[in-house]
Amino acid sequence: MPLMPDFPKIVSVDDHVIEPPNVWQDRLPARFKEVGPRSVRAPLGELVFQGGTVTMTEGDGAPCDWWYYEDKKIPTMRLSAAVGFDRDDVTIVGITYEEMRRGCWDPAARLDDMDANWTEAQMSFPSFPRFCGQTFLEAQDKELALLCVKAYNDWMVEEWCGGSGGRLIPLIIIPLWDAGLAADEIRRNAERGVRAVCFSEIPPYLGLPSVHTDYWDPFFQACAETGTVVNMHIGSSSKMPSTSADAPAAVGSTLTFGNAMSSMVDFLMSGVLVRFPGLTLAYSEGQIGWIPYILERADKVWEHNRGWGGVGDKVPEPPSTYYRRQIYGCFFDDEHGLSADALDRVGVDNIMFETDYPHSDSTWPHSREVAQKMMGHLDADTVRKLVRGNAIRMLGLDLEP
Amino acid sequence: MPLMPDFPKIVSVDDHVIEPPNVWQDRLPARFKEVGPRSVRAPLGELVFQGGTVTMTEGDGAPCDWWYYEDKKIPTMRLSAAVGFDRDDVTIVGITYEEMRRGCWDPAARLDDMDANWTEAQMSFPSFPRFCGQTFLEAQDKELALLCVKAYNDWMVEEWCGGSGGRLIPLIIIPLWDAGLAADEIRRNAERGVRAVCFSEIPPYLGLPSVHTDYWDPFFQACAETGTVVNMHIGSSSKMPSTSADAPAAVGSTLTFGNAMSSMVDFLMSGVLVRFPGLTLAYSEGQIGWIPYILERADKVWEHNRGWGGVGDKVPEPPSTYYRRQIYGCFFDDEHGLSADALDRVGVDNIMFETDYPHSDSTWPHSREVAQKMMGHLDADTVRKLVRGNAIRMLGLDLEP
Repeated sequence: MPLMPDFPKIVSVDDHVIEPPNVWQDRLPARFKEVGPRSVRAPLGELVFQGGTVTMTEGDGAPCDWWYYEDKKIPTMRLSAAVGFDRDDVTIVGITYEEMRRGCWDPAARLDDMDANWTEAQMSFPSFPRFCGQTFLEAQDKELALLCVKAYNDWMVEEWCGGSGGRLIPLIIIPLWDAGLAADEIRRNAERGVRAVCFSEIPPYLGLPSVHTDYWDPFFQACAETGTVVNMHIGSSSKMPSTSADAPAAVGSTLTFGNAMSSMVDFLMSGVLVRFPGLTLAYSEGQIGWIPYILERADKVWEHNRGWGGVGDKVPEPPSTYYRRQIYGCFFDDEHGLSADALDRVGVDNIMFETDYPHSDSTWPHSREVAQKMMGHLDADTVRKLVRGNAIRMLGLDLEP
Repeated sequence: MPLMPDFPKIVSVDDHVIEPPNVWQDRLPARFKEVGPRSVRAPLGELVFQGGTVTMTEGDGAPCDWWYYEDKKIPTMRLSAAVGFDRDDVTIVGITYEEMRRGCWDPAARLDDMDANWTEAQMSFPSFPRFCGQTFLEAQDKELALLCVKAYNDWMVEEWCGGSGGRLIPLIIIPLWDAGLAADEIRRNAERGVRAVCFSEIPPYLGLPSVHTDYWDPFFQACAETGTVVNMHIGSSSKMPSTSADAPAAVGSTLTFGNAMSSMVDFLMSGVLVRFPGLTLAYSEGQIGWIPYILERADKVWEHNRGWGGVGDKVPEPPSTYYRRQIYGCFFDDEHGLSADALDRVGVDNIMFETDYPHSDSTWPHSREVAQKMMGHLDADTVRKLVRGNAIRMLGLDLEP
């Protein structure tokens, strides 16, 4: 397929940074440096996955770069820094900074890789803190953990995004264990222009109150007030969907969108979007082909089961009303979601393309070809919305929509 | 909307029977009658839902008909016998046989209600045994439990379906705790013409081995040999999808299809459909609008993640190949699933309409109007397949397709 020179430059809402070794060591007070997050090189042993993290420590395998923090030892995995490797080589093994593509952790190299991939701007999720900062939620010393959250955000704003001329979009984390502190962190960062925060699809899976309580109201209020978008990446509930311990990885991989779907239903039925009409949600890497069914079903359940559904008083309009007003879906490869009937239900103003650099699902460096092929049947205005316009509007970016 | 006199008569693959009091008392040996399932009328107390069943015993509320069995006391609920009640009256309260529509438990009255609903034939799932016989799986005395399974099947074949001239289609249960005994029960019933059995979407949720083991092979083998279709109703894993204990019922109700979806991915990635090409699966009340996304994603995961997906050796063709050959979806109300692009992916030969009598989702007595409206954009051949032809072919019924 020939490349279209006039294809709109991509603004991607879901990419990832591998934090360089200095993020926390440069910023923590001296007394915390030895227990705070630090990079350690050690051979990898046998891997044991538990609760979404790898808990095994050193063995006699290949060298690997680990994060040590309190009693945690977390290896960096090739799956998280997969760009540049052949698909068949993207297996479950460790990786060092030298082995990974420099764009994983160096913002200047990232900009070069974006140039190579027709990408004008992008927004990256954290790696060691996990998708919404679960690592710091699990930490023992919450004074240190709060400093770690702020250090990450300072590094994100100052070092990662600071010299990029607006091409690297800041995305912050919050202290998940305190909605008031989280609101403070939203406001502190909004003052320097941040408009995006990570959050968990399903907080109860992290041991936190659900969105059906008023626990999160200070956080939601701060987001709504400052126009900060709540971004929920698949996996941000730590527990990934699967059916049994012996199911092959392909089962969980096919079902990864499940928590995004459940989360969207949660929000639609909770009344949160009614109480905070200025709140905006984005489901990162959640894909979109499942959204038409969910919206239809949510509206029908809302309509038909008033006798026992328990939402009539909190949700005055059909749930899909609030989806169209306040929710965005993000996709990297979804033919069904872009078919005419599906797109009409999903909404051309409610979805955004993503490049997922440097994960194994990433289409880098062929994202333009992938997007062009996937969107070949759509008119130019719609393509522009999906590839950049909706992201620019959602995040209030200073770019041509 | 005017009724179409030439609209095809419905053959529904998902309805429900409320077992009359005599099912087990007429068939169990004398020594088991006092501990086996027996109908008891008692006022209903406060309800406590635990693990998919209601565990509260008598209180000082309205009269209710209960099943007593070993140490279980299970009330019959209006939600399960909702036909004839206004939607707003379908709340979580108990019910007696006299209060429910006679067609719930009397086959002659059921045939009259089918006549009133443009339905030629239908297949009903059990109520007290739960959707795949979980009640007997949980029983302490497995000798009695096996007798109960056989008694239910004998009643189903002889009393419920026997005098219906083929209009009531037998659907049996198996002893879930022993795949060899389950295979025996399949063969015993196949000899008298039964072609449908209930099964759990996700056996591990019932404490049983997954379909990724070879535990179920004798059962699958017997089904494949005899052409017995494996029918998995939503809820047949006991655990219904939701997000938290404080989520309103509308969240779980919107997500009820989730286990059917996970189960379909499980089967597609397991190799079971490759090893048993004669095996047929049907997802009852699972709806269909989510199937296009799942098939696309399963095929892409199968294609892209060979390095670590773990299914390449067991599943030689793209997973959707086996869906089209061996899986059926069942729907009662699904506009998106019947839109042109979705239907093309779901397949006009792979889905079947259902009337869900007498549950709260039932469209009775307006199922013809509902079907006619929902399928108004489809050609006559396709409508006929969805309303009856596919069910007749799948179950090998002696009816005009």
